[in-house]
Amino acid sequence: MIRLGLIGGGFVAGLHLGAAALSGAFRPVAAMGSADPARAAAFAAAHGLRAYHNLEAMLAGEAALPDGMQAVALLTPNHLHRAQAIAVLEAGLDLLCEKPLAATLEDARAVRDAARASGCALVLAHGYSGYPMLRQARALVGEGAIGAVRAVQAEYLGGGLAERVEGTPDGARRWRLDPARAGECLVLLDLGTHAHHALGFILGEWPDRVSAELGALVPGRRATDYASLRLGFASGARGTLVASSAAAGQENHFALRIIGERGSLEWRGARLGELWLRPLRGPAQLFTRGMPELAPAARRATRIPRTGHPEGLHEGFATLYADLAERILARREARAPDPLALHSPGAEEGVRGLGFVDAAVRSAAAEGAWCVIPGPG
Amino acid sequence: MIRLGLIGGGFVAGLHLGAAALSGAFRPVAAMGSADPARAAAFAAAHGLRAYHNLEAMLAGEAALPDGMQAVALLTPNHLHRAQAIAVLEAGLDLLCEKPLAATLEDARAVRDAARASGCALVLAHGYSGYPMLRQARALVGEGAIGAVRAVQAEYLGGGLAERVEGTPDGARRWRLDPARAGECLVLLDLGTHAHHALGFILGEWPDRVSAELGALVPGRRATDYASLRLGFASGARGTLVASSAAAGQENHFALRIIGERGSLEWRGARLGELWLRPLRGPAQLFTRGMPELAPAARRATRIPRTGHPEGLHEGFATLYADLAERILARREARAPDPLALHSPGAEEGVRGLGFVDAAVRSAAAEGAWCVIPGPG
Amino acid sequence: MIRLGLIGGGFVAGLHLGAAALSGAFRPVAAMGSADPARAAAFAAAHGLRAYHNLEAMLAGEAALPDGMQAVALLTPNHLHRAQAIAVLEAGLDLLCEKPLAATLEDARAVRDAARASGCALVLAHGYSGYPMLRQARALVGEGAIGAVRAVQAEYLGGGLAERVEGTPDGARRWRLDPARAGECLVLLDLGTHAHHALGFILGEWPDRVSAELGALVPGRRATDYASLRLGFASGARGTLVASSAAAGQENHFALRIIGERGSLEWRGARLGELWLRPLRGPAQLFTRGMPELAPAARRATRIPRTGHPEGLHEGFATLYADLAERILARREARAPDPLALHSPGAEEGVRGLGFVDAAVRSAAAEGAWCVIPGPG
Amino acid sequence: MIRLGLIGGGFVAGLHLGAAALSGAFRPVAAMGSADPARAAAFAAAHGLRAYHNLEAMLAGEAALPDGMQAVALLTPNHLHRAQAIAVLEAGLDLLCEKPLAATLEDARAVRDAARASGCALVLAHGYSGYPMLRQARALVGEGAIGAVRAVQAEYLGGGLAERVEGTPDGARRWRLDPARAGECLVLLDLGTHAHHALGFILGEWPDRVSAELGALVPGRRATDYASLRLGFASGARGTLVASSAAAGQENHFALRIIGERGSLEWRGARLGELWLRPLRGPAQLFTRGMPELAPAARRATRIPRTGHPEGLHEGFATLYADLAERILARREARAPDPLALHSPGAEEGVRGLGFVDAAVRSAAAEGAWCVIPGPG
Repeated sequence: MIRLGLIGGGFVAGLHLGAAALSGAFRPVAAMGSADPARAAAFAAAHGLRAYHNLEAMLAGEAALPDGMQAVALLTPNHLHRAQAIAVLEAGLDLLCEKPLAATLEDARAVRDAARASGCALVLAHGYSGYPMLRQARALVGEGAIGAVRAVQAEYLGGGLAERVEGTPDGARRWRLDPARAGECLVLLDLGTHAHHALGFILGEWPDRVSAELGALVPGRRATDYASLRLGFASGARGTLVASSAAAGQENHFALRIIGERGSLEWRGARLGELWLRPLRGPAQLFTRGMPELAPAARRATRIPRTGHPEGLHEGFATLYADLAERILARREARAPDPLALHSPGAEEGVRGLGFVDAAVRSAAAEGAWCVIPGPG
Repeated sequence: MIRLGLIGGGFVAGLHLGAAALSGAFRPVAAMGSADPARAAAFAAAHGLRAYHNLEAMLAGEAALPDGMQAVALLTPNHLHRAQAIAVLEAGLDLLCEKPLAATLEDARAVRDAARASGCALVLAHGYSGYPMLRQARALVGEGAIGAVRAVQAEYLGGGLAERVEGTPDGARRWRLDPARAGECLVLLDLGTHAHHALGFILGEWPDRVSAELGALVPGRRATDYASLRLGFASGARGTLVASSAAAGQENHFALRIIGERGSLEWRGARLGELWLRPLRGPAQLFTRGMPELAPAARRATRIPRTGHPEGLHEGFATLYADLAERILARREARAPDPLALHSPGAEEGVRGLGFVDAAVRSAAAEGAWCVIPGPG
Repeated sequence: MIRLGLIGGGFVAGLHLGAAALSGAFRPVAAMGSADPARAAAFAAAHGLRAYHNLEAMLAGEAALPDGMQAVALLTPNHLHRAQAIAVLEAGLDLLCEKPLAATLEDARAVRDAARASGCALVLAHGYSGYPMLRQARALVGEGAIGAVRAVQAEYLGGGLAERVEGTPDGARRWRLDPARAGECLVLLDLGTHAHHALGFILGEWPDRVSAELGALVPGRRATDYASLRLGFASGARGTLVASSAAAGQENHFALRIIGERGSLEWRGARLGELWLRPLRGPAQLFTRGMPELAPAARRATRIPRTGHPEGLHEGFATLYADLAERILARREARAPDPLALHSPGAEEGVRGLGFVDAAVRSAAAEGAWCVIPGPG
Repeated sequence: MIRLGLIGGGFVAGLHLGAAALSGAFRPVAAMGSADPARAAAFAAAHGLRAYHNLEAMLAGEAALPDGMQAVALLTPNHLHRAQAIAVLEAGLDLLCEKPLAATLEDARAVRDAARASGCALVLAHGYSGYPMLRQARALVGEGAIGAVRAVQAEYLGGGLAERVEGTPDGARRWRLDPARAGECLVLLDLGTHAHHALGFILGEWPDRVSAELGALVPGRRATDYASLRLGFASGARGTLVASSAAAGQENHFALRIIGERGSLEWRGARLGELWLRPLRGPAQLFTRGMPELAPAARRATRIPRTGHPEGLHEGFATLYADLAERILARREARAPDPLALHSPGAEEGVRGLGFVDAAVRSAAAEGAWCVIPGPG
């Protein structure tokens, strides 16, 4: 069991604790659930962990213990990622970092550089990439099941910001609505990077240009809650990506369609254990989670080895933790990690995500002119 | 029974014959199923109709009969609509015209002007507007069920042109792939105008600007088979419209989402008897065809007065025919038509459709710059 | 065009008029919409037909005309079928008879014998057998796609009688609730025979024994509105059939599952254009209406030769009319009918249906003891 | 954290370890994963637990430790439950017991009596009762949303035994196929008791009589893999329950329909986060997991407090663990437990389940005669 420390609290901390436990590979030992001493103490006590409210103290304190934390889950607001992630990596600790990797492209590159320099593992929490059916989609595209990809469509719609909640006391919403803390384009950092990563993950190719319309559906809102993007790929494929966090009535609707020369793939989050392959001819085929016939990468991401039992976010994140564990153990044992454990995204993908947001913001400022999306550089 | 003549043949003629019969208001009597004498004769014989292969002869011949045709269904390739529609209208015959109204904006305006001058009724075959649940969507938006509309999304994807079929002997496909006959932007004329009309119909407001990416998914194709549009509305609403006739594996996928301040509406063609209302709070609601609680306009468009029995294209088109009949009968009887019969689109909507295509083509030529969509003028 | 007369009115008459028109093979010319002279006249006038209110007069009157009716659609309450059907057949007219064939097994046999003696065609209006995907299911079972059938499940649930409507003025409901007119077991005659026929149609084998629980869900109701049956087949297959017309909130829910040694088939009326094949291994397959790869019998029952456009009751009944027309024309032309036109049920199937109901009633009277279902004998 | 010991291994042990961790209330410390010393040691090592291969030694060993196990998860084959559960309870340990409670009604009563005598908590692993939407269904029925219940339908179909796997080396399948170890009626003990419990849980009323057909779909099989039951309730409601573990192509299909005087409820395992309320009039309503408007009992069973994120088996079992923890903590703290923690089934429900199976077996032996289902007595 790898000993885990948490930095950050709130809803997402519960999710990470559950996922780490489900992975069977991590044991939480310490937490800095808040910078406020009383809240940090309460959080740690609730989960039976050692309490900290200061990162330096946490790193020093844990390093001094024989059974101190060996890896960190970083769950704080976006603008804090850069300094905290670098500190963690420089302390030689492996990192599971919430997305986006950082609030800006420059920050993301700095984290990536620190990860490289440290030799530590960094897994980025695009939980969707831990879903078996997205891994199956990647496998099907890779083996040519739909031929060359010609067009893609991604939708990510949530309703959490459909009302004017700018004065809310809810901490997670508050920092998200503040561009100084969340970054310059809320909806793309929060939702759009998920879709961007999923497309790159499935296609094995990243969009290299973007045309963007950004704005706010809620009148008077400063933060960006609506994005309508066109994407272009070097291969000639093109696509659209629509995201909004102000879509009233939508329950975290994340849908992907990949259109190739010989058929389409379709997936959506509300049916995350199902993947449609619609061929040019003959009946559509429905692949389901748990089927023994799935690709090895999908099977590795399957935690309940039976069909007919939905899995969800906990299991998806557990796969990311399991992948991180495999990288850590392989390094300890001086062997190559299982290649199937390398499907989880890392710092490079994080830099790509911020590059994508950066290009979209530039495009929107130029009234939708096509802008080049930088590579991880 | 109103006596109907058909101009044009092929798949769509069967649809119109069935729909006219289902409407209970029309009796087909004559047809010019082709300009080729032998094929025209065969077509007419197969349906027990008087045969013509020349429009002038048809108009003259029928006018000379005591029980000659009183209305016309015009089903020919787009570029023929202008001259044929004007001839029909100038002969004083009411018209049900396949969409688009014409191949170009200028042609559409000419047809519209002729319709105005003639005093004849003209119904445009956007069959979707004859579907009860789209009429219910219009009623729900109109009564404020989702508050002010903030964003819309339309997808229309078919796979009929996913392969290189440019050399096909299939007549309907052949003229569609020829810009000289189908018009300058196949995918928008064929599919996009349906989505454009459905949005205007449901919202009661038409988009006034567009930013367009147009192209071909199939390498080497001259015709446009892919369109990715951004739409803007004077009210502040915005949206996207993606259409392709080269989406392998997609079976006439037409989907609409209307996002308002207090909820969303969702509809798709594969489930045309269902309409989702997803409110900001509380359970989602599924309205179904045949429910006695539907709005009057939806009930008028319901042909099977029972729930649980899917209806489809025949019934949708039958509603357009029934609406046309009501306009004709009202004029004969010198009374106002039932207002519920005025939901079917006419020449104005046809001009709007071509104006929309025209603006999109201009935008695409200007690399996606926003272009104003002309009103019906 | 075959000239059609209607006997009976109400909702179902509209359906038959539409379906006959869609078939392209029949032209309605006469109707006895009611035994009441004024209502019969109004019905006929509304549809432009010659009016009758007495069957003898109708048969004599039409026989005397050079263009008198050549076939009859019989749409009256069950207890009238016997005398009316026999009179029609003895007049040498072909018959499309609403189901059930008659109100009792004895009556059904009498109609069947009259049909045999007359040499006329008789098609029984189990509209579901006109649906392409049920024909596809039959084809898949026949070609061994799921191996030997082991178990079947049928559900048919409607909500029309969920409330106490015994005093309703609605004519169709009134006679159905009266065992003297509808027959002894409302729910099986009305809904159960559809499910029974669909199972026999798909399997190519009829259940030969039944154990039944019959009753009323609505307190105080005399008519039977609930049936829970076990079925046995000579092949060893077994199954269940649950039907109720008092299932509040259910919208004509008709669902079938066929379980074989190598997979299952699933179909339901709310998605009548879809058929699931769930194999023992590998992805489930979704067959859809209009696919060019369907079996010939399914393609013959397809009226809109495109995928993605739902069809429904009108088209299903139109297929029965088209099959009837083919039998009539083949006889006229002294040739064998297209074998694909013989999938529509006839008098034998009608006798089987009444035999099934008869056995279920006997079983229920014996507290669910297994009873033999008589063959068409 | 309550210290947990596991008795039993295999697939289900992974599920319980994950669920216990997700509950946030239990810490596994010891395991008897097998009676074979080497396999028991391997199992314990893989999960970092103290190893035992003998129950007496485990109970004694843990009792001697200051941090020994305080509760037990019992996951062994059915016929072992009686002796093991009683030993655990007599040792004063709380128990989470896999279903069925025991292999026979007599054994189940003995376990129930031991639980009563011990004062320990016993939670029975009907995981479905930990699903929020089943708890919501119970709340809706309880508050009269569909009026008095008139009929119920339950289906539970799996394909795991669709082939002849009698000679399989798979341990879990092997003991299930052996009536001496699994009990007399495999399909009812394995699947039927889930459906029976869910019906009683939702209705708040248990069926009091049953008519059963039992058999094997797979030729030559000794074990029962097919059950077709009729159920009766004292309130006058009636219903059906069909279960099979030999339904080729079915992926753990568990579906429930509750028909009341004013509407129906529908739920199925493949969409476990969704619950349909179909009222007699007006649109159907879809309740979804995570909605803030759900009943308190459903909210307590919700682990991810956001809509749009599917949960599954891990979370459902975690709710059972959380309920067990609350009972344990309440006893420790000498207070009444949260009433919402009492929705998980216990020994009484386990006795009811075995009584249900016992009555069904008697009915089938009497050719389906109605048999009384004993109460928990």
